[in-house]
Amino acid sequence: MIDNYDNVCAIRWTEAGLQLLDQRCLPEKESYLQYVDAAAVATAIRDMVVRGAPAIGISAAYGVVLAARRHMKESPADWRSKVLDDIGLLAAARPTAVNLIWALRRMRRRLEAAGEDPFAELLAEARDIHAEDIAANHAMGEAGAALIEAGSAVLTHCNAGALATGGYGTALGVIRSAWANRSINKVYAGETRPWLQGGRLTAWELQRDGIPVTLISDSAGAFLMQQGQVQWVIVGADRVAANGDVINKIGTYQLAVSCRHHGVRLMVVAPLSTLDREMPDGQQVTIEQRSSDEILQLAGKPIAATGTAAWNPVFDITPADLVDCLVTEMGVVTAPDTQKLAALPASESARS
Amino acid sequence: MIDNYDNVCAIRWTEAGLQLLDQRCLPEKESYLQYVDAAAVATAIRDMVVRGAPAIGISAAYGVVLAARRHMKESPADWRSKVLDDIGLLAAARPTAVNLIWALRRMRRRLEAAGEDPFAELLAEARDIHAEDIAANHAMGEAGAALIEAGSAVLTHCNAGALATGGYGTALGVIRSAWANRSINKVYAGETRPWLQGGRLTAWELQRDGIPVTLISDSAGAFLMQQGQVQWVIVGADRVAANGDVINKIGTYQLAVSCRHHGVRLMVVAPLSTLDREMPDGQQVTIEQRSSDEILQLAGKPIAATGTAAWNPVFDITPADLVDCLVTEMGVVTAPDTQKLAALPASESARS
Repeated sequence: MIDNYDNVCAIRWTEAGLQLLDQRCLPEKESYLQYVDAAAVATAIRDMVVRGAPAIGISAAYGVVLAARRHMKESPADWRSKVLDDIGLLAAARPTAVNLIWALRRMRRRLEAAGEDPFAELLAEARDIHAEDIAANHAMGEAGAALIEAGSAVLTHCNAGALATGGYGTALGVIRSAWANRSINKVYAGETRPWLQGGRLTAWELQRDGIPVTLISDSAGAFLMQQGQVQWVIVGADRVAANGDVINKIGTYQLAVSCRHHGVRLMVVAPLSTLDREMPDGQQVTIEQRSSDEILQLAGKPIAATGTAAWNPVFDITPADLVDCLVTEMGVVTAPDTQKLAALPASESARS
Repeated sequence: MIDNYDNVCAIRWTEAGLQLLDQRCLPEKESYLQYVDAAAVATAIRDMVVRGAPAIGISAAYGVVLAARRHMKESPADWRSKVLDDIGLLAAARPTAVNLIWALRRMRRRLEAAGEDPFAELLAEARDIHAEDIAANHAMGEAGAALIEAGSAVLTHCNAGALATGGYGTALGVIRSAWANRSINKVYAGETRPWLQGGRLTAWELQRDGIPVTLISDSAGAFLMQQGQVQWVIVGADRVAANGDVINKIGTYQLAVSCRHHGVRLMVVAPLSTLDREMPDGQQVTIEQRSSDEILQLAGKPIAATGTAAWNPVFDITPADLVDCLVTEMGVVTAPDTQKLAALPASESARS
């Protein structure tokens, strides 16, 4: 059952097709874009209409459903190969979120096992991926919240919330659960340059739940810790390597280094679909470089001197030894390493 | 002699009064505002028409000259007390830069020693403060550059350049000198939220000298270090406590923690006028909190969700033990501590 988190819904399936909340327009405007073919979904992922590793995976899964519907109608003779082409398009939309590859593998297996009219089966699989993600987030929310002492203040980075997932959120799921049971009494969010996910998305979605947020410049995290104002940093992940290295939004690593320096604990919240068992460690990942305009301009207007270059890696790599605990839907891994992660139950993709 | 650095000039004295380059409008517009009384100069400092600890001190010194000229003409009976009132106004304009207090003490002593027509003497004192600052910057530039191995890449934060000083700059003075002697081959600058001094000011002024700059999000510093792309972080200071703790732009401390974690060296470049011998350590300082609008808005337009709070400390405190070297105009102090700083020659303010 897809029990979308009531107040915030990034991804909707309707009879007419896939609807994505255009996150580029938040918080000013809450508008849904409608998609009827996979290529447009791939473009939406690349252009960040939808973002966040689990949300990208779910959107791509629905994209495969759209591909099947379209190509079965328009190309009855070779629809399968056209759907496989679209799966390739979707897989190439963004490089970092391993959930994208994981979800597409599930969809391809279902496609391969299906008969000549797989639409209903593919839709059921996409809905399962979506519903399982929400269930995983609720499980992680409870498990993570149980680690947090009453009276804690926490800092989160980027948006690992309902907007970044099927619903409820990973890091923000933990914050929602811990706020509900009153163990968290203050939430700080880094504004998360260059795309400002913290100020635009995290602040917006937490306020919808009546959870007040205090925004900080990304450079203020260490000072916040030095002043004793925060006990936990809680983030999501775009990919977790087999040894527990975490690939996540640029700035996560800088916070992790500061956490260790101050004895502040770092909690990474990620479903098993985020675990890349084929990548031995995080340094193997190719870090996505996005346009320097994301740094040099805001809303199309220059905010830096003309002619300036920019280096814009949008993810970074946090070594496992800086992670205090990794919260998954199958339990909490303290001080994650290769052995502990190998002992986790296989995710759906690894089972087959 | 006030040998303003040719390409960039933040502060000009003219017959008509004080001219300040309006740094709020850079890099789009290069316009000078004219000041004929001290209260307006105090407002200009508070509103950041001029910023940077040494530049604030120099501007305030000229502000005292303006006060004397005006009050001698308008209030011949009690001009001295009115000038002292204006010195109080100027001193309260911003709380962190100790150079402000230092420069005003020099001006007050000159005022007290002067006769019934002190205008020329006060102007000479302000010009001395200005010229000495430029000379100090050149001396620090040479001393700091001598520490940098050929082939180095450096990261700077905020703007500690010609715009922040009488000319040439502190951190950017070192970068200018080291670029000229070819020991630096790449300059990174943090964009420095919320006011974007890195993108707007540092990138602008270095490009005027033909020094290319690569801008990064403030959260990317640690990742830059992890990837081995930078050997030094070079910053200025708004105040250095007697034990060597450094109060500087928010984000400096976060970089200092990352430097130590990666074995990247941290150089702080500050003239003796920045040393506060009366403050035993940095934790005594009151950190200036500026309006949350600096984080929540850009150019008057909201960039965060409505109703979000923000915490906006604009400076932070870097403990001396994270500073590899403090470069002053009287030489380099390696691993600064109370004893080593006490052994430095007295600045002008301490001599009297």
